[in-house]
Amino acid sequence: MQAKTPVGILGATGIVGQRFVQMLEHHPWFEVAWLAASDRSEGRPYAEAARWRMKTPIPSRVAEMRVSPAKPEAAPKIVFAALDAGIAAEFEPRFAHAGCAVVSNSSALRMQSDVPLVIPEVNPEHIKLLECQTWRRQSGGFVVTNPNCSAIGLVMALAPLEQQFDLETVMAVTMQAVSGAGYPGVASLDILGNVIPYIAKEEEKMEEETRKVLGQLNGSGIVPGAFGMSGLPSAPEQPVRYVASADRPQPRFDADCGNGMTATVGRLRPCGVLDWKFTVLSHNTIRGAAGAALLNAELLRVKGYLD
Amino acid sequence: MQAKTPVGILGATGIVGQRFVQMLEHHPWFEVAWLAASDRSEGRPYAEAARWRMKTPIPSRVAEMRVSPAKPEAAPKIVFAALDAGIAAEFEPRFAHAGCAVVSNSSALRMQSDVPLVIPEVNPEHIKLLECQTWRRQSGGFVVTNPNCSAIGLVMALAPLEQQFDLETVMAVTMQAVSGAGYPGVASLDILGNVIPYIAKEEEKMEEETRKVLGQLNGSGIVPGAFGMSGLPSAPEQPVRYVASADRPQPRFDADCGNGMTATVGRLRPCGVLDWKFTVLSHNTIRGAAGAALLNAELLRVKGYLD
Amino acid sequence: MQAKTPVGILGATGIVGQRFVQMLEHHPWFEVAWLAASDRSEGRPYAEAARWRMKTPIPSRVAEMRVSPAKPEAAPKIVFAALDAGIAAEFEPRFAHAGCAVVSNSSALRMQSDVPLVIPEVNPEHIKLLECQTWRRQSGGFVVTNPNCSAIGLVMALAPLEQQFDLETVMAVTMQAVSGAGYPGVASLDILGNVIPYIAKEEEKMEEETRKVLGQLNGSGIVPGAFGMSGLPSAPEQPVRYVASADRPQPRFDADCGNGMTATVGRLRPCGVLDWKFTVLSHNTIRGAAGAALLNAELLRVKGYLD
Amino acid sequence: MQAKTPVGILGATGIVGQRFVQMLEHHPWFEVAWLAASDRSEGRPYAEAARWRMKTPIPSRVAEMRVSPAKPEAAPKIVFAALDAGIAAEFEPRFAHAGCAVVSNSSALRMQSDVPLVIPEVNPEHIKLLECQTWRRQSGGFVVTNPNCSAIGLVMALAPLEQQFDLETVMAVTMQAVSGAGYPGVASLDILGNVIPYIAKEEEKMEEETRKVLGQLNGSGIVPGAFGMSGLPSAPEQPVRYVASADRPQPRFDADCGNGMTATVGRLRPCGVLDWKFTVLSHNTIRGAAGAALLNAELLRVKGYLD
Repeated sequence: MQAKTPVGILGATGIVGQRFVQMLEHHPWFEVAWLAASDRSEGRPYAEAARWRMKTPIPSRVAEMRVSPAKPEAAPKIVFAALDAGIAAEFEPRFAHAGCAVVSNSSALRMQSDVPLVIPEVNPEHIKLLECQTWRRQSGGFVVTNPNCSAIGLVMALAPLEQQFDLETVMAVTMQAVSGAGYPGVASLDILGNVIPYIAKEEEKMEEETRKVLGQLNGSGIVPGAFGMSGLPSAPEQPVRYVASADRPQPRFDADCGNGMTATVGRLRPCGVLDWKFTVLSHNTIRGAAGAALLNAELLRVKGYLD
Repeated sequence: MQAKTPVGILGATGIVGQRFVQMLEHHPWFEVAWLAASDRSEGRPYAEAARWRMKTPIPSRVAEMRVSPAKPEAAPKIVFAALDAGIAAEFEPRFAHAGCAVVSNSSALRMQSDVPLVIPEVNPEHIKLLECQTWRRQSGGFVVTNPNCSAIGLVMALAPLEQQFDLETVMAVTMQAVSGAGYPGVASLDILGNVIPYIAKEEEKMEEETRKVLGQLNGSGIVPGAFGMSGLPSAPEQPVRYVASADRPQPRFDADCGNGMTATVGRLRPCGVLDWKFTVLSHNTIRGAAGAALLNAELLRVKGYLD
Repeated sequence: MQAKTPVGILGATGIVGQRFVQMLEHHPWFEVAWLAASDRSEGRPYAEAARWRMKTPIPSRVAEMRVSPAKPEAAPKIVFAALDAGIAAEFEPRFAHAGCAVVSNSSALRMQSDVPLVIPEVNPEHIKLLECQTWRRQSGGFVVTNPNCSAIGLVMALAPLEQQFDLETVMAVTMQAVSGAGYPGVASLDILGNVIPYIAKEEEKMEEETRKVLGQLNGSGIVPGAFGMSGLPSAPEQPVRYVASADRPQPRFDADCGNGMTATVGRLRPCGVLDWKFTVLSHNTIRGAAGAALLNAELLRVKGYLD
Repeated sequence: MQAKTPVGILGATGIVGQRFVQMLEHHPWFEVAWLAASDRSEGRPYAEAARWRMKTPIPSRVAEMRVSPAKPEAAPKIVFAALDAGIAAEFEPRFAHAGCAVVSNSSALRMQSDVPLVIPEVNPEHIKLLECQTWRRQSGGFVVTNPNCSAIGLVMALAPLEQQFDLETVMAVTMQAVSGAGYPGVASLDILGNVIPYIAKEEEKMEEETRKVLGQLNGSGIVPGAFGMSGLPSAPEQPVRYVASADRPQPRFDADCGNGMTATVGRLRPCGVLDWKFTVLSHNTIRGAAGAALLNAELLRVKGYLD
């Protein structure tokens, strides 16, 4: 049996960081070897530094690991980054500069022209963009990103339509689980019996990230086939599925489909304004965050970028 | 002091029926004189027949009233109807035929061509449609309706825009409180931690009712002014108000505005597909149901239809 | 490989019935061969008759089975009963009379003196009580029951204490998930932002069922050992576990422990009135209903009552 | 008309501080003249410094007031304190030392032997304790406190029983609304679909505060009469009421009784261990916090301590 590739997690104590720990527990290729978080956590055992919010127990091997300083010196080659955008803007370039493959879930660099914004089943070719990064040429390091949790579900539903029908206009309205805000995130006083109609920068992300993922690379063009890359260990059998029942998708029944990696589409019907209407549901902390990045890391490996 | 006009409530034990009882408790013109419900409730004191769900206590005078059979014989001239659509289709015509002014919250007859679908601040002129009803000519009875709870909020926000800008295309997505389904309505098992993406016939109602309310009467035309009828006792000072804060409207802060009769608009911003986007919030059991019907009854009286 | 024993489910379309279907899907000994429900469901495919509320998909083999009439004639020897108490009082004796082993989750016969009320890890000896049932002597049929969902968790926590310390006085307060009320159960309007302080007959069940399970059989005495029966396929490794963290147990983290079959105790601390206080959490539709009955069926088989 | 007495609020931007602002808006005796909060808020208009969470709009006069530094120099004679315990331990003595009448909702000084812990309807005589405070003798300042939100409801229900029956033993279990934790307080991720069985120091407060309020002053004795002090402007007509319906009290129907100042008792029934069991409900941010302190301030004025 081949040894697994050691990976690190930047922002390991937050909700997305915890998801990385959870999803990597039994991963066939990668294993957590390094955990970094804010200064406050440094040096403490992970189980104590992280306020563990996952439903499955904290993996015992990781529980005892000490939280490292967020510096690239001792970090492994591959680093999953689960940082707030402001912090990511500073730390992700630093790790890439030092030679790390930074697989980021943050919005900080997503729209930078030389940073791939990738969903492996949709636009795996975009991964080549990282060759344009200065870090890549200098230290071998680079940054790869995945879209915002809401944009991912939308793009997954749109990609096959784009391929077949050449989409012209899309209108989207999103409803988001409180988990999308991280931890502690939304105060219970703010959301119980209530609806909050605004998340800063969310609409902008939906628009620009969707365009970037569905857009074409210079000269090469996206050919998503009946979806792009398949066969990655964390990829679901069906990236997108359609449920016919009129009252689906519902989070209760559909969010965990494909271990949380499948987007579920339903309620397809003609639209009086544009052509068609439908509803799409995707899991916001798995497919929309840690799982998306993990899939990107798997794509990087298959494409030879982690050698 | 002039005696108040006696009114009846058909479907008095349901959630909307209870709202009628609550909203009529201190009404300056009307007072509850007759309560009807299903056979099961007949003859029982209202307090016992109704599973009272309002937050304010059941009015003591009404609590002791006996529930009458749902027959027009002993009903007062004015009857508020809070019946399920299937039952309403049978009972509302029966009461109108017997000479009653039926002020209905049901969808059963809303789209019938001679039945006014009215929001007093928007299309008070439509009330004249009732003159075309056969019942009116034969017995003096008639049926007046208000739109679906979701359509009302939308129409109130659109009306002034329609007047100023001549609306061409509208796309709407609704989110609805569980109270919209009546009682017992949505099972807690179905909705806790969940979203249900479908309510039967809701989309159809949104489309056709909005068109009917904003449409023109033959030859006469709607002149909603800076809104139509004003000054009715249950009308809010401001039928529609705009809140500038980016994270409003929120049900917690805005649903009860104007005693639940004001629709709150917010988040107005340019739209890349159509011209403008905004959010509108309205109270679904007050402005969207009992309050809407009550306002219609007040309009009827002011226009002389209850004399 | 030995063929699995066919089992039936009475009340198969309700929430507990669905749990039986779900928990039996991969059971090593039993397989669903017969589904019965109310007349309304008779003859329809199960997938259509049941409004499936489980998170895992409906097992395809069962989905296509036709719902049978609730008559013992065509029922298999072993029948799980998930009926409302009123109906159970009539149907369970009928099936036992006809020779069926009725493994019941209903409260109807629990307190009858010749009906075992059993938690296999606590009082497996009580199963012998069924020898006293007239049905058993006449047709071979019998009824075995498990306690109420709240009583089960309490008894599991108390049993080892009873064995060691001879309990004298217990005070208990319960908080119950809405799932305890079945489907549709509690209306969302009744529970959102609310607490309902009363469930009919719940306090009585807590008291009398706890006493019966922890009580002694004539002459024989309970010797629960370090818990009673172990090694049943659906039994968790640890029937009761203790968590030391001050803010546990929490449903989010602990309800699913042992596949929902483990009761979790925490917050043990001295009490100023009685001697000790603690908190116990158990899953109300698994350990507290279908799982409890399934475990009883496994006990019956191990003890030779299903031969 | 006599001018109202100016009062200040320490910790004015938090949830309890906001409640003070809300409840003082139309107060017949007091008016808000001074608002203090943390350094971060200093100098900013209150409407901007406070993230207003009340359902009624922020009073316009207060909205424009500037937040003052939390120093006694410019504070009015009467200061309501809504501070976290750690901060209160430092600031409340400072303001009392400077001559202020500090009416505190914090737990910091509640159990100090010379600090009155008062519910005006229960133990108004305890107010005399403040004469023992060194501050009182030196500068005229003093600190008066009210119990914890959970203890208040319990004490209000127990007080008449104590008077009639001389209570010996009480066991209590509490369930608390998330609002009890202030703002942002409990993260939605922690509480949706979950129960948290622990609040630090809550059990201790329940025990010791209940004993202190129901205890006797040296030599004088509590004579709560048919309740103690009555007729204060914020006091409800009925401090405690009993509802006979088996499924009450419920927060939805009963929390706002008496403008949130009445405690509602229900489900009185014999207990097999102690003598009687019942359920009591009280509003945790009105009767259990700001309203409790406001009532204490009114008591102080009636007793002449504010002259």
